Amino acid sequence: MTSRAGKSRFRHVALVGKYHAVGSRDALERMAHFLHAMGCEVSIERETAQNTGLTQYNSLSASGIGTSCDLALVMGGDGTMLGIGRKLARFGIPVVGINQGRLGFITDIPFADFETHLSPILRGEYEEDHRSLIHASVWRDGDCVFDTVAINDVVVNRGGAPSMIELRVEVDGRFVANQRADGLIIASPTGSTAYTLSVGGSLLHPAIDGWIMAPIAPHTLSNRPIVLPASGEIALVLVNGRDASANFDMQTFTSLLHGDRITVRRAPYKLCLLHPVGWSYFDTLRKKLHWNEGMTT
Amino acid sequence: MTSRAGKSRFRHVALVGKYHAVGSRDALERMAHFLHAMGCEVSIERETAQNTGLTQYNSLSASGIGTSCDLALVMGGDGTMLGIGRKLARFGIPVVGINQGRLGFITDIPFADFETHLSPILRGEYEEDHRSLIHASVWRDGDCVFDTVAINDVVVNRGGAPSMIELRVEVDGRFVANQRADGLIIASPTGSTAYTLSVGGSLLHPAIDGWIMAPIAPHTLSNRPIVLPASGEIALVLVNGRDASANFDMQTFTSLLHGDRITVRRAPYKLCLLHPVGWSYFDTLRKKLHWNEGMTT
Amino acid sequence: MTSRAGKSRFRHVALVGKYHAVGSRDALERMAHFLHAMGCEVSIERETAQNTGLTQYNSLSASGIGTSCDLALVMGGDGTMLGIGRKLARFGIPVVGINQGRLGFITDIPFADFETHLSPILRGEYEEDHRSLIHASVWRDGDCVFDTVAINDVVVNRGGAPSMIELRVEVDGRFVANQRADGLIIASPTGSTAYTLSVGGSLLHPAIDGWIMAPIAPHTLSNRPIVLPASGEIALVLVNGRDASANFDMQTFTSLLHGDRITVRRAPYKLCLLHPVGWSYFDTLRKKLHWNEGMTT
Amino acid sequence: MTSRAGKSRFRHVALVGKYHAVGSRDALERMAHFLHAMGCEVSIERETAQNTGLTQYNSLSASGIGTSCDLALVMGGDGTMLGIGRKLARFGIPVVGINQGRLGFITDIPFADFETHLSPILRGEYEEDHRSLIHASVWRDGDCVFDTVAINDVVVNRGGAPSMIELRVEVDGRFVANQRADGLIIASPTGSTAYTLSVGGSLLHPAIDGWIMAPIAPHTLSNRPIVLPASGEIALVLVNGRDASANFDMQTFTSLLHGDRITVRRAPYKLCLLHPVGWSYFDTLRKKLHWNEGMTT
Repeated sequence: MTSRAGKSRFRHVALVGKYHAVGSRDALERMAHFLHAMGCEVSIERETAQNTGLTQYNSLSASGIGTSCDLALVMGGDGTMLGIGRKLARFGIPVVGINQGRLGFITDIPFADFETHLSPILRGEYEEDHRSLIHASVWRDGDCVFDTVAINDVVVNRGGAPSMIELRVEVDGRFVANQRADGLIIASPTGSTAYTLSVGGSLLHPAIDGWIMAPIAPHTLSNRPIVLPASGEIALVLVNGRDASANFDMQTFTSLLHGDRITVRRAPYKLCLLHPVGWSYFDTLRKKLHWNEGMTT
Repeated sequence: MTSRAGKSRFRHVALVGKYHAVGSRDALERMAHFLHAMGCEVSIERETAQNTGLTQYNSLSASGIGTSCDLALVMGGDGTMLGIGRKLARFGIPVVGINQGRLGFITDIPFADFETHLSPILRGEYEEDHRSLIHASVWRDGDCVFDTVAINDVVVNRGGAPSMIELRVEVDGRFVANQRADGLIIASPTGSTAYTLSVGGSLLHPAIDGWIMAPIAPHTLSNRPIVLPASGEIALVLVNGRDASANFDMQTFTSLLHGDRITVRRAPYKLCLLHPVGWSYFDTLRKKLHWNEGMTT
Repeated sequence: MTSRAGKSRFRHVALVGKYHAVGSRDALERMAHFLHAMGCEVSIERETAQNTGLTQYNSLSASGIGTSCDLALVMGGDGTMLGIGRKLARFGIPVVGINQGRLGFITDIPFADFETHLSPILRGEYEEDHRSLIHASVWRDGDCVFDTVAINDVVVNRGGAPSMIELRVEVDGRFVANQRADGLIIASPTGSTAYTLSVGGSLLHPAIDGWIMAPIAPHTLSNRPIVLPASGEIALVLVNGRDASANFDMQTFTSLLHGDRITVRRAPYKLCLLHPVGWSYFDTLRKKLHWNEGMTT
Repeated sequence: MTSRAGKSRFRHVALVGKYHAVGSRDALERMAHFLHAMGCEVSIERETAQNTGLTQYNSLSASGIGTSCDLALVMGGDGTMLGIGRKLARFGIPVVGINQGRLGFITDIPFADFETHLSPILRGEYEEDHRSLIHASVWRDGDCVFDTVAINDVVVNRGGAPSMIELRVEVDGRFVANQRADGLIIASPTGSTAYTLSVGGSLLHPAIDGWIMAPIAPHTLSNRPIVLPASGEIALVLVNGRDASANFDMQTFTSLLHGDRITVRRAPYKLCLLHPVGWSYFDTLRKKLHWNEGMTT
């Protein structure tokens, strides 16, 4: 057993705060002090530094963090993690989510006692949790006009007008079906606790090498969400509908045209989350979804 | 028992075609001849007359039909019926739906043998089927800024941006819940086979004096559609969300502001549909929803 | 405003405890003292008296309570209320539900401060809440072989063997569909928060004059729960399946035979629940179903 | 390109008919003649031979087929395939499903023109389709009291009494949740089009290395089906409930006791189905689930 005050195995640690989070300045400073005491070099993500005025630290862009840091501590909710995790994942740098409010699905360390949880992680005692990422592209007339990575999901949906869109779905070049609905979601296991869940999609354990595709308000009553292998390519072609847009986590590609083709593949890298020893995916699920809280007496 | 060739009990009958339906000219003319042979005076709805060039008949606006005709024959699908039915209902004039394509839920007489089905109806042998209508209003700062009647449903939903809206729901002034979702639908029994069905709402028999309120992609997993009495007032207040709009069948009120209040009440009149003797709501349901067609061998 | 110590308008009040609830003796005695202080004559339901040994009070059967008491206080959960409410309803006697544990849907007064809630009710300040009851019968070869009343629901389901049953559904003599499923539930508005809810049925407000019919694990994917008018008769005829049984709240009729016919009608009387002034059906729903408790941060 | 009349690559082919299928005698004989003409040695599965009186052929038990034949042609529906496929899979022998009635999910060759479809397959032109099998065991007091393999699903459910059971769910020794429901289903991708689909489970593509676990009428409203990795062990422990049983495809283990533990693992072998060239999983899905058949006009 190593001593609690032991030195960090991660030499250079980045701190990332949530977007526009002026109020997290004190919390970030406390974490910086703690990291220094653990013997770490500390950098602050550039926008976080600007928003909080923490200018006494070295500041780095997301890619700067990816190339020069050994660990990133992300303070905020799941949304903050989606934003920065997407940028950091390709560098292979592990991330830890720390939450000041209600714990999220992937930001599961309470800020209130962050030292207790972070000390062992920094000393090398943790559980690794690798999450698949979606690599999505939009193609128009044979050209790729948009290309990105999403942690949660890709959503193609109608505009504000109250009419359905129609999408032709193909998997590895094979026709699946023409879907008429308000929209269609393709979610990773990480995203399966978000939007797809609210339209009746099943949960996917993070170890499942697949995506769940679920329609929003489908026209055909026998339509069902389906889990497709992440090893292939799913393509969605807009056949009908005005003002449709495609959303990738929080990034939006608006004004899809008929014939536009959105492709979904597995990104060549994963997001590596670190959790305290003893962490269980199922514990998080049970708490967040209020399982084991009965309804009636 | 009256003879099959008997005279019509409905003296003055209006013909209504579907929007922009140039192709239905011949069909409408055949029906006009048939009505003349049955001893009826025939008028054509004004836009139908313009679109088809059937200028040899008297043409009437919807309210003209309502005040001077005894029956309206609507040729088209359920959409056509929603459009004209909403305008005719307040005059108490009965309507019959005749369909050239696939039969609808409320347009259930096939054009192919319309004489066979219409003769007894015109002679007074039919089943009456009364449908509740929704009277909906939009209120802003205490003023009514929009007011209409819907046969199917009232839908409040988010704009094109991929974010939820939040609605405060009240029934007869009592707080029900704050709903965070893509949108919220309130449907009549007639509308319960349409949009609400695709988001998991139950079907309502036309004799049920209630509306079904169903969320679209609700944030809370324990959220469920609920059937509320039509005798009271349901109010939806926009608490959060940009570019939300309210839709009443096919009519749209865009750009809802925070604090806008959509109220839903029962209209003081019903839509009276006439069906052939022996018609059954359940037969229609079974056919349209493909019940009794098993999945596996 | 009457004084808090005012006299009860209900002269003779019955106390009913939950089945085999030896532990509720003290609680019942405290309530009896309180009722005496309010000037009421107190009787104890016969089985409750036997189970708790509260022999110093007059004891009455359910029908004795119905004919001689003015109010019944039921201590227990919703299950206790289902059991006794079904027997008392036909006498028109109002009931109040008091709960020592987690509040139920219809037993909504916490025992912890029962005096505070009961005093105004006894003085005549309350909200009445009338609940429809299901009158159900089982018919074999034209004879009625079982006949009862249910507050929540009628369930026809398969036996222990893992095979479907098939039921022919009729409404007022009209064929609806042949349902192949694990079972079929017909629930009242009161029962719509129970079993039907867990198989995807919508909630029914107590003022809705209808039943919700919902299949359990239906074979046909386009099958949906449907709300049917309570004014007519629903009949379920067992067409196929071994060891099927019919359940009426907690009463079971086992070994249904092919051709057995279960009919469902509205009972000619309602259950009258009394609630504290300000009670709202929606407040109960929101609390019990954990609405307005978000899932994510 | 080989000639259509080319010789079979499969030297010894077994014919299997459906249980008690006296009526399939002629069909089986026609297939036997065809196989002879293709140069195959033909054996008939023992029970099939007995039921149809086809005694002129060599008859073999399932394991006899597995050890001495190169291919099995199964005539019947998906149920027939479930029964024999489970027994043949461990021998690695490929199977082909031929259907006299409505095509199934895995018995997809119509008998009407079996020569057209079988000739290329016998000559070596086919698509292989490998399906995971579930290896399930029942443990009592540390002893394995039942052990089997299922193609579709494992179902633990309540007996005929209308009360829930409670199951403790564990994955690889980690606690997941206590499930209170009518029952719990764990299905393979092949089984995801059957029972789990009717309780709201998502479809799993056959290439997904996972199982879907779905509750039947769960007590907790936020309960959702979940896809779990097939690489680990799922355990279900009966905590509460009378007369519960466990079903493995069509095999039943009755009278589960409290503390009984049902474990689910991936079997070490798969079922190998052969389909005509051009076969697509999605085509089957689309046809069987009636996708692309709209509901309204």
